[in-house]
This record gives sequence, structure tokens and C-alpha cells, in this order.
Amino acid sequence: MERRRFVAATAITAGALAACSRPPTAGPAAASTQPIHWKMVTSWPANFPGLGAGAARLAEMIGKMSGGRLTVKVFGGGELVPPFEVFDAVSQGTAEMGHSGAYYWKGKAEAAQFFCAVPFGMNAQEMNGWLYHGGGMELWRELYAKFNLVPFAAGNTGVQCAGWFRKEINSVADLQGLKMRIPGLGGEVLQRLGGSPVNIPGAELFTALQTGAIDATEWVGPYNDLAFGLHTVAQHCYYPGWQEPGPTLECMVNKTAFDALPADLQAIVEAAARATNDDMLADYTTQNQRALQTLESEHGISLKPLPDDVIAALRTTSQAVIEEIARKDEFTQRVYDSYRTYLEGAKRWHRVSEMAYYAAR
Amino acid sequence: MERRRFVAATAITAGALAACSRPPTAGPAAASTQPIHWKMVTSWPANFPGLGAGAARLAEMIGKMSGGRLTVKVFGGGELVPPFEVFDAVSQGTAEMGHSGAYYWKGKAEAAQFFCAVPFGMNAQEMNGWLYHGGGMELWRELYAKFNLVPFAAGNTGVQCAGWFRKEINSVADLQGLKMRIPGLGGEVLQRLGGSPVNIPGAELFTALQTGAIDATEWVGPYNDLAFGLHTVAQHCYYPGWQEPGPTLECMVNKTAFDALPADLQAIVEAAARATNDDMLADYTTQNQRALQTLESEHGISLKPLPDDVIAALRTTSQAVIEEIARKDEFTQRVYDSYRTYLEGAKRWHRVSEMAYYAAR
Repeated sequence: MERRRFVAATAITAGALAACSRPPTAGPAAASTQPIHWKMVTSWPANFPGLGAGAARLAEMIGKMSGGRLTVKVFGGGELVPPFEVFDAVSQGTAEMGHSGAYYWKGKAEAAQFFCAVPFGMNAQEMNGWLYHGGGMELWRELYAKFNLVPFAAGNTGVQCAGWFRKEINSVADLQGLKMRIPGLGGEVLQRLGGSPVNIPGAELFTALQTGAIDATEWVGPYNDLAFGLHTVAQHCYYPGWQEPGPTLECMVNKTAFDALPADLQAIVEAAARATNDDMLADYTTQNQRALQTLESEHGISLKPLPDDVIAALRTTSQAVIEEIARKDEFTQRVYDSYRTYLEGAKRWHRVSEMAYYAAR
Repeated sequence: MERRRFVAATAITAGALAACSRPPTAGPAAASTQPIHWKMVTSWPANFPGLGAGAARLAEMIGKMSGGRLTVKVFGGGELVPPFEVFDAVSQGTAEMGHSGAYYWKGKAEAAQFFCAVPFGMNAQEMNGWLYHGGGMELWRELYAKFNLVPFAAGNTGVQCAGWFRKEINSVADLQGLKMRIPGLGGEVLQRLGGSPVNIPGAELFTALQTGAIDATEWVGPYNDLAFGLHTVAQHCYYPGWQEPGPTLECMVNKTAFDALPADLQAIVEAAARATNDDMLADYTTQNQRALQTLESEHGISLKPLPDDVIAALRTTSQAVIEEIARKDEFTQRVYDSYRTYLEGAKRWHRVSEMAYYAAR
């Protein structure tokens, strides 16, 4: 997913916690005569298909459910703060809410990446299981509390694509020297296999591919990729998205602001995040299938599977990279142990349920 | 899933719409000084693992988010009305809410089955996509409006198991005369292949299998099946659950009661259903993997795949049964056409995303 679009934009700080400084109340009396107005900063362009639309839906739901007692104004990346200053802005209270992806914050804590996407890790259904019933959310809250933040899962793209390539990938050797836009852990894995991962703002992907400045790029999937026209400058689209098998998008709330809310508004914020988490995956599941049909029928593009030996090499290298990261500190090791244990159990169950069903129908 | 547990229980009617007869208001003023108290009737025993727990969570969320302005008291199947009178009870206003599964209401409308589970149909992720972004929910609302009901998706079990069998299933011939508890469309399919589908209350499954009154039964999956001890009276558990690949559980609301709510409480009810929809699948994804591990490690049970020729026969027969149902009336045909179109697109997309990813990792 995009990491640096609008990074150049200037940060504008605007302390806005005053409205939330009232002591918490609960029950019917919680109805506020003085509406609370929050800001939500995001890492996506305003109303960006899927991601930005989800953030907008989340804010709208909170306003409706609270009957206007809590309103949330959404800012696209760069409008209030740059996309990758969302974490600091919400942590410091420049904005009370943020919508982003936790793997952008590995500079703050390596463990953050496990709450978004891990190469060859959990898909959307498994991430939700781990976070809400497998102990993941407790670990996420423990980590973010150190930054005065409260995290919620608030969206998922489902399995992404492996990316668009100007040349065919027929073997591991074809990754040698491959200049590819691929952020995060996926980029680290590509580098160890001889490739050159680069990070380019999404808005520049089309030109970079067209001019040959890069040989390949991963973005999201048919829905978002088609909108960028990547198929017109790179003919080979590979699957599956081993690097992002089901990234969880996050809604983070400034803990001081959240704790100051009455109990009913706290419950509304939490439920709005859960509803958005449910809705965004449904949105991508629908739009990706339609975009895939357009790519195939109107543009003659057919997605290709990555060769088995390439998948095998990516899998082995990913495992090595992840275990190195886990060893970096005690907390990250705890998160990895919880994640790995859940993933192993999910693999066994889904082998005889979801996976076997896809094959049978 | 269970269909008739507690059917014997006596129905108690208790008109309770008075509290909802206030004219709608909206905005901050919507905060009610006079709390609204609703009843939710369900088709499950109170707090039944997964299904009943989801209904309880839904009610609790509404109470919290509304700050007590709207409270929902949950009744297990048979406590207020029998499990399979939920639809009529909410339609008539005996209770304002219900939690059940739409395929129980095929007697009211054949089309209802498409909003829950169809053999070889959509899994949980696909059902959510179709319902919320593929036109499914509009059709569901159109159907339920005729019964003065407003439907919401409020849970999913994920892919179930094919069931527990006393004898091995090695070929289609082994289905001949097989006396199996399997309700709905799945039962119809089994019958056409020579089997004898029967319907037995869940509470009687253990004894029926133990005494040989039935040769096999499908229930839900490891989580709920282990609780019933089915593994102690039938040694062969087969996968995948072709008959219920991702049943959507429903939250139905009496339309008169819903329309009388202020806008903020309507939004709260809708979001609580979405949040429950998100949470129940996460619950099953977690508990099923743990129960599977218990079955394997503590009871030495290993799930077996249904033979390919059996799957093929079930698939072909299912298609024939579903197309017959679709032809029964114009509305059902419209629902089936929408369902089938979405499913075909979902198959193409998930073949190169979710399905390919499961195989690659």
C-alpha cells in the first residue's frame, strides 16, 4: 500500500482536546448538550477508493449513532498532517483519531507490523480471529498505550496481488536486480533475494513504470490498480499477494480523548470501527472481482501465478526475516509467539474448511 | 444447524410495542428520558456457544451504545416463543427483534434460503460482499418488508463440516439409504442421491447416533460438535461443509418498531448488527481451530476429505436443486440471478487471491 504520498505536505498542528476534557459520564445522562468535534487524520487521499471511503464511513457512522453528540471531520493524507505523521499527530493530540496501517510504524516499534500484514501470514478472517478472540488486540492495546493511543481494527483489503511487472518472472533468478516498488517486510524479503526494493509515492507509480525507472510495483489489487492504469504500462500481473495476505487497517484514537468520552460514546466509537472492519473487506471483495473482470474482458490482461520455486524462495526468506525481527526485543517476541501460534492453528483448521471448500466447489 | 430444539416449548405472546410508539426524533434531542425496552427472540438456546453468544453480544452492544436509551432482553429458543416461530413473532410484534437463520423461513418464501446458506455457494467473505456491496441486502429488505421486517446480517460460522458418520463414505454408493440428520437444501440433495435425510433436535443427536437411529449427522463444526460429544459416537468426520459454506445469521427487526426509532438509535441497531457480523466469524475461526486441535490431540480424531466423486455428485445435484427452486417464482429467480452472478465473479477473484494464497503459504 502507499506509504509516502503527500509526505512533502506541511504539518499543521491544531490542538483540539478542549472539547473532550469533560469528566466521563454514563447512561442516558451521557447525552451531551455540548457536541464534541473530533478530527480524523488518515494516510490516504480523501475518499480514496476502499481505504479512504472506509475512513469516511467510520466518521459518518459515529456522527449518526451519537445523534451529532460526537462528530468526526476526516482529513486526507497531507491535508492536516502528512500521511506518515498520522501516528505522531494522534499520539500528541493534534487530531483525536487516525486511520492508517500499523506496519507504517515499525520505526516506533517493530511489533507494530504484526497488527497489519506479515508476508505468508494471516489473511483477513484469521487476523480478525487473532485480534478479537486470540489475544492479539490485548497485545496491540498494550503496545499503543505506550504512545497514548487506543487501537481498533477498522478495515481489510483481503489478499492483495503480487504486483505488476514489465518482464515475466519465470524463476528466482529473474528477481536478481529487479527494481520494484514494494514497502515494508516484502521489500526486505525481495532485497535478500537480489532485488532492489524502492519506495515511490503511489501517484508516481504510473510514470515510474512507464519510463522504466522501476521494473515492477505492488500496489493493492485489481480495484485500486486499475484506477492507476498500471495495466497499461506493465503487462504482467502476478498472484497471490504473498507480501500482504490480508492487511488490517487501523483506527487509532488518542487515549486521553477516548478516556474522556462518556461510556456510550466509547462504545459507539468501538462498534463503528468493527462495522467498518466488516464493511471494507466486503467492499474490496466486490470491487476487486469487478475490476478483475474489466482487466480480463476489456484489457485482455490475465493474472499469472508466481512460479512454485519463486513462491518457495519468498516463503523461506520471509520466515527468516520475520524471526530476526521477533528477536529484536522481548515484546516483539511475545507478539510473534502469539501470532505464530494462532497462525499454525488457523492453517490446520482452514486446510479442512475454507481452503478445502474453495477446491471442492 | 439445529432447527427444532425446544420446538415443543410453549409460545408465550407478549405484545410490547408500546414503548416504541413515540414519533421519531433525531439529533442530540433524540436522547430519551423514557428508555425503550425491546425483546429479542432467538432460534438458539440462551448463550449457546457462538450463535447464542453473538445474539447476547448484539443486545449488550445496543444497550451500551444507546447509554441505556434502548435495552434489548434476549430470550433463548422456547423461552418466549419456539425457535422456529421467531420469524412470525417478530413479524407480528410479539418481540421487536429476532436472531436466527433465513433458511429456516423457506416455508414463507423460497428466496429466503439465499440470504443464509446455499450448498456449494458463497462463503462468509463472499456473503458479506454480496449483501453489502453486491445488491443482496436490497433484495433481502424487499422480501422481508412484505412481512413487516427489516433484516441485517449478524453473524457467520464460516465453512462448516460435512458431518459425523458411523461408517466410512468411500463412494456415492455409500450414500444409498444413509439415514442422516441434515436439514434444508443439503437434505434435499442427499435424498436425490439415495439417502434418507431426517431432522432431529440437536439435543437428541448424541443419543440418535449412539443408538444407531441415524447413521450420520451434520451439525456445525469442531467448536459446537465437540461440545455435543459427537466424536464419541461416530468416528468418521468428513470435510468440507459443502451444505453450509458460510451461513449468514440474521438479525431481524419488526419494521414498525424500527421505523419508530429516532435516527441515532436506528444507526446504533444497524452498526451493532455489523459489529456482531464481524465478531461471530472471528469467534468461530478461533474456537474451531482450538476444538480441532482437541479432537486431534486428545481424542485421536482426524477429519477426512469426502471422496472426489462424492463431492462431484453432491455438486451436480445441488446445482439442479437450486435451479429448480429459483424457477418457483419471479422474485426467487431475481435473487438467484443476483446471487449466481456475484458468486461467479467471486470465484474468479478468489481463485487468484484467497484460494491461491492458502495454497502458496
